Amino acid sequence: MATDRRPIVDLSEAEARHRLPLKWGVPEGVLAAWVAEMDYAVDPVVLESVQRMVADGITGYPVMEDPQLAESYAAWSARHVGWAPEPEAVQPVVDVTAGVRLAIDVLSGPGGVVFPTPGYNAQHGLAGVTGRAEHLLEVPPSADRAEIDLDALDRLLAGGAQTLLLTQPHNPWGRAFTRAELEGVRDVVVRHGARVVSDEIHAPLVLPGAEHVPYLSVEGTHDHAVAVVAASKAFNTAGLRCAQLVVPDPAARQRLADQPMSRNDSWSPLGATAARAAYDHGDGWLASLIERLDEQRTLLGELLATHLPEVRMRPVEATYLAWLDASAYGHDDAAAVALERGRVMVSDGASYAPGSTGQVRLNFATSPERLTEIVERLAKAWV
Amino acid sequence: MATDRRPIVDLSEAEARHRLPLKWGVPEGVLAAWVAEMDYAVDPVVLESVQRMVADGITGYPVMEDPQLAESYAAWSARHVGWAPEPEAVQPVVDVTAGVRLAIDVLSGPGGVVFPTPGYNAQHGLAGVTGRAEHLLEVPPSADRAEIDLDALDRLLAGGAQTLLLTQPHNPWGRAFTRAELEGVRDVVVRHGARVVSDEIHAPLVLPGAEHVPYLSVEGTHDHAVAVVAASKAFNTAGLRCAQLVVPDPAARQRLADQPMSRNDSWSPLGATAARAAYDHGDGWLASLIERLDEQRTLLGELLATHLPEVRMRPVEATYLAWLDASAYGHDDAAAVALERGRVMVSDGASYAPGSTGQVRLNFATSPERLTEIVERLAKAWV
Ligand SMILES: Cc1ncc(COP(=O)(O)O)c(C=O)c1O
Ligand SMILES: Cc1ncc(COP(=O)(O)O)c(C=O)c1O
Repeated sequence: MATDRRPIVDLSEAEARHRLPLKWGVPEGVLAAWVAEMDYAVDPVVLESVQRMVADGITGYPVMEDPQLAESYAAWSARHVGWAPEPEAVQPVVDVTAGVRLAIDVLSGPGGVVFPTPGYNAQHGLAGVTGRAEHLLEVPPSADRAEIDLDALDRLLAGGAQTLLLTQPHNPWGRAFTRAELEGVRDVVVRHGARVVSDEIHAPLVLPGAEHVPYLSVEGTHDHAVAVVAASKAFNTAGLRCAQLVVPDPAARQRLADQPMSRNDSWSPLGATAARAAYDHGDGWLASLIERLDEQRTLLGELLATHLPEVRMRPVEATYLAWLDASAYGHDDAAAVALERGRVMVSDGASYAPGSTGQVRLNFATSPERLTEIVERLAKAWV
Repeated sequence: MATDRRPIVDLSEAEARHRLPLKWGVPEGVLAAWVAEMDYAVDPVVLESVQRMVADGITGYPVMEDPQLAESYAAWSARHVGWAPEPEAVQPVVDVTAGVRLAIDVLSGPGGVVFPTPGYNAQHGLAGVTGRAEHLLEVPPSADRAEIDLDALDRLLAGGAQTLLLTQPHNPWGRAFTRAELEGVRDVVVRHGARVVSDEIHAPLVLPGAEHVPYLSVEGTHDHAVAVVAASKAFNTAGLRCAQLVVPDPAARQRLADQPMSRNDSWSPLGATAARAAYDHGDGWLASLIERLDEQRTLLGELLATHLPEVRMRPVEATYLAWLDASAYGHDDAAAVALERGRVMVSDGASYAPGSTGQVRLNFATSPERLTEIVERLAKAWV
């Protein structure tokens, strides 16, 4: 696929403010390193697929079943991670979080949901939205390596929780769980007859040195697990509104199919088209992206060593989101100080793990120049 | 606004099959008159707004609050129906049905939901999705005029139901409820301390002779009601994924604002842009559309009188969806016969009201020629 390599195009700040209105909806003079979007232009191949559709005036309802999208995803997955569901297992949903909600609502028992923490901020409270209790499985925010504590998982499931919301690769841990780790999770889950919803939105963003192991590729998981996947995070198309739910168990598929339409009919045909373009034709851009993110990761490590030697960064195996422990600098609220004194918007650690005010999540998917300025500003703010 | 009148452009069958893949996903030789989409090209002004956005590469998350969209809707509503919410009351949701669900989930008591029937097929079962009982408030499918039976409503609310899902204007009744009717509804609802969710997606589609009265424009409704509105039905942009929830009561707004993000963060920025373009600049196209739909309504009446004199059509005050009672022709399943013998796909009456197999819903938003052929085929099938 090297032949159709396409370069990563950096956005100027003005372009970023225009194209990424949520992330860059920060005051003038502030640099945005929070929301998980990249300061890069969308792959032209993906953009053209959407442009063509709009030019053709296709703005109506999507078809209810989308075998082409399912096949595109399955082929992508086979090519990139060496495992793929059968296309019948793949169905569109409006976004990843809605897919997680749908899976829990329809397939899980009424017991609580275990949510490893620090955990993706917008999914805190999701268990409650499904009417279930939320059990935080806490990893100390300053631990050097974040792992799912299987004993803690065991206790929570023994205590009545019935679902594990897994994030694989993990945001904000930056981890790509190994097969052995996932087998350990499976064993505990199976022992309790619990279910797993595996949010794998970051799967395309595993960086050199790690690999993505889909939870569903682990033996003995199909009867109790689903995955939620998307091209939207790796291809910067979160606003186009289509993710995919992977349900390998035919009985679970039937339960979903039996639901009233109003549970899941909100995805956009533009999002589905963008996803297909990304899965079918995005490899040449994705390869460039991974190279760039790998460079950014290295650069971030160097910048921190130079300017913020007391900050501990967890090794980033996947995603473009680094978890920084700045507590050595002694601020009550590291993110607030970064914004006020450094004019950098990072994500507040406490939004991922209650009380983690010494930690922040930093988005390094930007240009080397902007990342340099971001870290220099953080140093000015924190040191 | 007459100066910027834009014409309605009919889609050829080939174009319709390309642009409306759900509605026209019917076998070759079958004419589609089911899904509520129109065989007309999208208003170029709306389409250009989306094209511009995609050309600019804006595919990321929308901003969380969208005061511009709120103001565009409020201005549109003031201009077209003589009443408008304050912009603070208007917030985006991914689609109308999701907005209805959100409102019931968050604002309603746990008692059942009253759903006047025949009722929009995709909302049958929605009460169950919110964990509540569904109480059908049945209007006999062959009644000449469909009205909400206030005594029946009173009994259902007395029996423990706590929410009325109102559809105003009504699909598939074709009714635009009068202020007096809505005041009657309000009185019963207020007596029981119940809530109203008013689905007003068809508001722009009120035809000459009737007028749209927003439920929220009725005195004494703000403490117990919300509306869900959209430009998507009138402007044929259902796939772009943005509707608006109108919540006049600040306390209810606060309850919604206090929800976890995962309850409502799925609308598309493209849908929001399309809605703004429609509200701000769509009047010149909408006026042409209403003229055309009025002509189609007249034509349909004439065609039925000629070819299907035993079919009873309810007066269509709003929407482009006619409720036809074909039971005089004695078929067990009028929609199935239409498809098999007539090669016309209409919507099965039973999907709106259990058991109404002698009725069908017919979508007349097409060309005069195609509507003529549709009715001729129905005559061949049924007579
Ligand atoms: C783990 C995880 N899941 C889901 C999402 C959001 O996906 P969506 O917008 O499709 O719900 C993110 C966004 O960063 C994420 O990190
Ligand atoms: C009354 C009513 N509400 C809602 C909808 C669908 O709207 P959405 O796709 O935004 O949920 C329709 C579609 O025809 C409808 O008739």
